[in-house]
Amino acid sequence: MKETLEELKEYLEKIAKYNRVIILLNWDMETCTPKLGFDKQADAIGYFSAEAFRLSTSDKLEKLLEQLSEKEEYDSLDETWKFIVKRMKRDLDKDKRIPADFYESYVREQAVSGNAWREAKNKSDFSIFAPHLEKLIEMTKEKTGYTDPDKEVYDALLDQYEEGMNSEIIDGLFEELKKELIPLVQKIIQAKQPDDSKFKGYYDPDDQKKVQKLLLEYIGFSFDAGAVGETEHPFTTNFSSKDVRVTNHYYEQDAISAMFSAIHEGGHAIFEQHVKEEFDETVAGSCCYMGIHESQSRFYENILGRNKNFWVPVYDKVVSLLPQLQNISLDEFYREINHVRNSFIRCDADELTYCFHIILRYEMEKAIFRDHVPVEELPKLWNEKMQEYLQITPKNDAEGILQDMHWSDGSFGYFPSYLLGSIYDGMFLEKISEELGDIDTILKEGRIQEITKWLNENIHQYGSTRTPQEVIHEVCGKEVSAKPLIRYFKEKYEKLYELV
Amino acid sequence: MKETLEELKEYLEKIAKYNRVIILLNWDMETCTPKLGFDKQADAIGYFSAEAFRLSTSDKLEKLLEQLSEKEEYDSLDETWKFIVKRMKRDLDKDKRIPADFYESYVREQAVSGNAWREAKNKSDFSIFAPHLEKLIEMTKEKTGYTDPDKEVYDALLDQYEEGMNSEIIDGLFEELKKELIPLVQKIIQAKQPDDSKFKGYYDPDDQKKVQKLLLEYIGFSFDAGAVGETEHPFTTNFSSKDVRVTNHYYEQDAISAMFSAIHEGGHAIFEQHVKEEFDETVAGSCCYMGIHESQSRFYENILGRNKNFWVPVYDKVVSLLPQLQNISLDEFYREINHVRNSFIRCDADELTYCFHIILRYEMEKAIFRDHVPVEELPKLWNEKMQEYLQITPKNDAEGILQDMHWSDGSFGYFPSYLLGSIYDGMFLEKISEELGDIDTILKEGRIQEITKWLNENIHQYGSTRTPQEVIHEVCGKEVSAKPLIRYFKEKYEKLYELV
Repeated sequence: MKETLEELKEYLEKIAKYNRVIILLNWDMETCTPKLGFDKQADAIGYFSAEAFRLSTSDKLEKLLEQLSEKEEYDSLDETWKFIVKRMKRDLDKDKRIPADFYESYVREQAVSGNAWREAKNKSDFSIFAPHLEKLIEMTKEKTGYTDPDKEVYDALLDQYEEGMNSEIIDGLFEELKKELIPLVQKIIQAKQPDDSKFKGYYDPDDQKKVQKLLLEYIGFSFDAGAVGETEHPFTTNFSSKDVRVTNHYYEQDAISAMFSAIHEGGHAIFEQHVKEEFDETVAGSCCYMGIHESQSRFYENILGRNKNFWVPVYDKVVSLLPQLQNISLDEFYREINHVRNSFIRCDADELTYCFHIILRYEMEKAIFRDHVPVEELPKLWNEKMQEYLQITPKNDAEGILQDMHWSDGSFGYFPSYLLGSIYDGMFLEKISEELGDIDTILKEGRIQEITKWLNENIHQYGSTRTPQEVIHEVCGKEVSAKPLIRYFKEKYEKLYELV
Repeated sequence: MKETLEELKEYLEKIAKYNRVIILLNWDMETCTPKLGFDKQADAIGYFSAEAFRLSTSDKLEKLLEQLSEKEEYDSLDETWKFIVKRMKRDLDKDKRIPADFYESYVREQAVSGNAWREAKNKSDFSIFAPHLEKLIEMTKEKTGYTDPDKEVYDALLDQYEEGMNSEIIDGLFEELKKELIPLVQKIIQAKQPDDSKFKGYYDPDDQKKVQKLLLEYIGFSFDAGAVGETEHPFTTNFSSKDVRVTNHYYEQDAISAMFSAIHEGGHAIFEQHVKEEFDETVAGSCCYMGIHESQSRFYENILGRNKNFWVPVYDKVVSLLPQLQNISLDEFYREINHVRNSFIRCDADELTYCFHIILRYEMEKAIFRDHVPVEELPKLWNEKMQEYLQITPKNDAEGILQDMHWSDGSFGYFPSYLLGSIYDGMFLEKISEELGDIDTILKEGRIQEITKWLNENIHQYGSTRTPQEVIHEVCGKEVSAKPLIRYFKEKYEKLYELV
């Protein structure tokens, strides 16, 4: 029995090495690989992905997991290994139903489709991407047919990114948000807007990198267990809790974008850096629930980062690194980072209208997988929904349906995670205020580490061992609800825009 | 037959993927991995190195190579594949005599020893490194015992880095250099030295990076097939001719160091970027002869980079990126980059006294492997030789025997390559001047690309398919000789220091 567990651990170490290599090849592809090196790097990603898939669905692993699942052996495991064995067995049972050759062609199509999407976006020509999108939709259906034969396709996808979620729950949450936020945004748009002309200027990317370092250290990112890179789109990736990497993109005309990307990715990274070390390189380590993950990045980005008091202890330092901000007071800065406007690009949206960007994508995905709307009709549907929620219509598909990369690698069902994250944040904020006191005061007094510590202890350390529902229940003691988020929005923006 | 070759090609593609991963893990370890991530990354390097070794010494590969070596099959191969089959068969015959478990412990000792060396250097305490150095020396002897049972150990090591070289040839070359250069340097040291006080200042590493980009582009480095990184020590690494990476280290008090490291590593990289594409990811691609490789990096660094005319087309641009140089004329800059002085650190030495740094290390290595001088006596021997050649004695071992990393990973026999490179450079310079005309004029007129093209065509494209001796014969039509280098030194420095 002991031996079987040891054998499993050894096997997992091997799998971890292949996973490390896949993560590293991808990281390098985004941060460093020169143009002419792409093809061979992509080949290697394909090869090692197939090897890792083979190892994760092998008869040997299956046998080990079966042995450890037998009652007597299972009962002798500690809680962590009980979780690992149960979770791996579930995943293996699903994954081994995927034919190996289908898996390989799926991985290849993800790469090919990603290239087509980039070209389509650059040329703002949806027709370049359309056949690949269609193929990926079909392959996604086929894939969930193997892994979740008893589930409706879109619910299977939602569950894949946020275990336990389905469209019935999400419909309820998002409808409530729509009901409350549409009138709120309408009022704001008609109210007096802050003057953003003072923010125009040139911000040296090297200076922005120094600000990023300052902000990451301020919120608690550990550079001993982390690194930074530069990419077209910011992201976070990790090998274990000991090596977590964030990237950023620096715009020469806009320093605010990279600041908030740094705080957002920093939130993801702090989460991963605080997962229990003993979970490293197992399915217990890292957090595989994207709603919970986004709740942490968005808590730092929005609940903390867009709070004026967050900046009180550091604003002077930021200004000293970015001299272009010298004539801008903290009050003006605070107004600008909460400037609500109807805009085309999700990533640049304020925290309030951001909700509509997600609801739109969620409804699009339902249209694709439930209503079987043909691919060629999707741009029109997108634009209609933009008009409905934000009263604007994209000039072209690059600022419309082609803006995000998610669908190009088959990540259907991911988008709702962002808004679920914010919904959870409303609940976490309530709880933190209850337990630690008023967060305005905590932030103003430079005690942000107390909040990070609370999040570490209550959420981060558990990695994947608690499902989203378990996290919410353990932390908040209630069912998930959009009400706290709505209350937070109303209080903040009614005051900010002097609506009452 | 055709099938066998196809099978070999397929097998090589697989080996190439493992080699890619090893190169990438090492690159990432140096450029990016955070401190707490080292251990797991090192484990992965060990694992994939063992896998690659297993693939490169497998019975399957042996059988394929044997089949292709049979007369009829061999004769039907083109020249490239003849070379590949012959070279791989030779390497496999050597490598498969290394016991797999010995190889694994050797790779592990390299890593462990590297860490011990770093600590020893930081604390300037040779005793921390000594037991590892001793172990590596023993393991190196054991390893060459397997690979080259019929060769004397040190000659086997020299041959490993520069095929065809042995200590008899090197003794002859280095003795001639000593005879001519010792009196030359003596005269220079007593002559009037340039004033370097104007160079003191703060040079922002971000500015230095911009200068590096300018210089790399100027000499012909392709960013489409290359990338740059930042590390403790500069180096070049490559996956293929399509992805070649250089690193640099930026000193805040000294901009010249990073400029010349950029040009040096750029020389290595330009070499690799111009190896014939069809050789990629085979033993024909890349250049495995370190003397020839160093000849190219040092040609750019010294023969071109330390020539005043190299700077004529770009000096103004460099100054505009490094405002601290504004008060320094090109003449003053030229004097400083050729400032001869007896100093402790090889990497910071001028091109002339650099020769003694190498001769010293070569003699140390002979003392280790020929005279069996015990490890604990090596620091004393080092210091005596420093006194003999440079009339200075290191204050501590950090600026003495511990300064270089080479021995810490078992690279015994590498050092002579640097000076062999310079010796070849003297010969190449003669030939280029004959064929293209006076290089002062070429450089001054901004036609450096003509020199790069000449090197591409005459040297780079052949990768590993021509041995060092073949390169010298094909390019220069004569035996290797130190005379052209000596002539270059004398002409340049007698003029520079007004010795005649």
